[in-house]
Amino acid sequence: MIDVQIPFEKLKDMLQEILLSHGISQQRAGRCAYLFAQADLDGVRSHGVNRFFLFLDFIKKGLVDPKKEPTALSQLGMFERWDGQGGIGNLNADFAMNRAIQLSKEFGISCVTLLNTNHWMRGGNFGWQAVEAGCIGICFTNTIPNMPAWGGSEPKIGNNPLVIAIPRAKGPVVLDMAFSQFAYGKMSIAQAKGEQMPFDAGFDDQGNLTKDPGTVIKNHLGLPAGLWKGSGLSMLLDVLASVLSGGNASFEVGKSGHETAVSQVFLCFDPDKLELTDWLDTKVDAVIEDLKTSSTFGEKSVRYPGESTLKIRKVNLKNGVPISESIWEKLQNELNK
Amino acid sequence: MIDVQIPFEKLKDMLQEILLSHGISQQRAGRCAYLFAQADLDGVRSHGVNRFFLFLDFIKKGLVDPKKEPTALSQLGMFERWDGQGGIGNLNADFAMNRAIQLSKEFGISCVTLLNTNHWMRGGNFGWQAVEAGCIGICFTNTIPNMPAWGGSEPKIGNNPLVIAIPRAKGPVVLDMAFSQFAYGKMSIAQAKGEQMPFDAGFDDQGNLTKDPGTVIKNHLGLPAGLWKGSGLSMLLDVLASVLSGGNASFEVGKSGHETAVSQVFLCFDPDKLELTDWLDTKVDAVIEDLKTSSTFGEKSVRYPGESTLKIRKVNLKNGVPISESIWEKLQNELNK
Repeated sequence: MIDVQIPFEKLKDMLQEILLSHGISQQRAGRCAYLFAQADLDGVRSHGVNRFFLFLDFIKKGLVDPKKEPTALSQLGMFERWDGQGGIGNLNADFAMNRAIQLSKEFGISCVTLLNTNHWMRGGNFGWQAVEAGCIGICFTNTIPNMPAWGGSEPKIGNNPLVIAIPRAKGPVVLDMAFSQFAYGKMSIAQAKGEQMPFDAGFDDQGNLTKDPGTVIKNHLGLPAGLWKGSGLSMLLDVLASVLSGGNASFEVGKSGHETAVSQVFLCFDPDKLELTDWLDTKVDAVIEDLKTSSTFGEKSVRYPGESTLKIRKVNLKNGVPISESIWEKLQNELNK
Repeated sequence: MIDVQIPFEKLKDMLQEILLSHGISQQRAGRCAYLFAQADLDGVRSHGVNRFFLFLDFIKKGLVDPKKEPTALSQLGMFERWDGQGGIGNLNADFAMNRAIQLSKEFGISCVTLLNTNHWMRGGNFGWQAVEAGCIGICFTNTIPNMPAWGGSEPKIGNNPLVIAIPRAKGPVVLDMAFSQFAYGKMSIAQAKGEQMPFDAGFDDQGNLTKDPGTVIKNHLGLPAGLWKGSGLSMLLDVLASVLSGGNASFEVGKSGHETAVSQVFLCFDPDKLELTDWLDTKVDAVIEDLKTSSTFGEKSVRYPGESTLKIRKVNLKNGVPISESIWEKLQNELNK
């Protein structure tokens, strides 16, 4: 795969232009484009421009309504429920985290939920959004069933991405993980290369663990990270998302055959309002400093979640954001349609 | 190991009598005894009476001060920070979850944190406490460093137990998990029997995954559940516990060489106050019903977290709580000292 390096603003403008041609307003197209481009800017290429055409396809098929915006279902002080109305997933999530940030500035802690929303693309964006506003942010989404529950032989639970973000002057800690040990995208790449995964990735026909990506993909039995523990935790996040939003659980999302109408939760803690600022930075710094003293099995040092993001962002702002040449061509063709 | 079956009340009274002889007040001794006995009642024998003598030893060594009660550090509406004052861990946690329950009834959502507290023994107790009050409860604690961070070759992060509990008329969903794939206790039992663990349990001298409990115990390199994902998530829970309480992070807990002065977080959501009751039961029921339709690799059905607790509790209330004969003798000797 050959890459081209596109200046961030140019990439964002390109995406925005395409979105405008789909009848999305100037401002919303700009923000949506920014969120797609930010994923690539931060080195999360699996969830950025790579997904843009899939997203456009969802719009064309009527699975995402680009003109719909969230409407309030209930507003009870620090807790708000919103209907995503089947609108654009990353814009809805951006809106919800923004509400959560505002509410946490007022109440200290806040929780905003979304029902009937769509895939938020790169979840980490919303963690960065929280920490850039000085807040601790926690958010999670359910998904279509794509893993077996522990002991099961068919996909029954989602891999339900979870983001936890903690602000820090020297650079935040941002965890962005799904509960599948490996993404199907990564397994497909390994399969195409004829490679095995480095660790157990799912189940074979007999229910034994296997590192063979082809087997896992064929069986659609990706491994819950942490085996029974990740299976249980992912299931609980799904139930929380469904109960707190009043929206679909994973199994209901799965009924349509498309990953639409998912449920999401956004929690914020404002350290100022909660009077945590005296020690916030000191404590996070100290944990990271200690972590960095760890002896290793060969790596230069162990890493904390989100550690490399600011470095990658800086490099990509300077040199341009790496985009596969074929995708860049496709974007240009899309614009010239 | 031969078991005796002790009526729950008799077990609780026995523990209470022993605690009274350590200068603990009647009421606090009763509640502390209840919490220890409840773990065994619910079938969580690893964290009940099995730990009672270790707990008494901590009191004798002055590592737990049985007379100290939590004092408020800050009370900001739905968010409260308390100093556990090195008191009894399960009583402090019981107190904190109770505060969180009360605050959630008032505000909808609440967060209570503890610094300078001690091991809460069975975390699931506090999840059950929340659901029995009709609340969604989430709590987590940090621990002494007992796992390597991903890539590391020495213990640097805690296995930081996490509890998520969701109320339900037909029986709640209660997840109670630590982020180590296997507890050291389970690995010791397998080692004594000359058995391998059923799944990867930690690292060998070269940093490769191994199922051999002896190797893992020797290296003190238990596996984070979910590999790099569980390592990251457990680290984030530690940072959250430390930042939200203002107390020790795992690495600071580790400095003393004893697992004391840990930090804990207790979150509650009151479904009544948050107006979630119209669908709470329906949604949780539906998820569980769907889960139960899963095909399996031989098991009768897949299970949800907490599924067996009510059954075990019922059996043990009827037949008596299974306690190892040697521990029961030790309890009697302790009382007759």
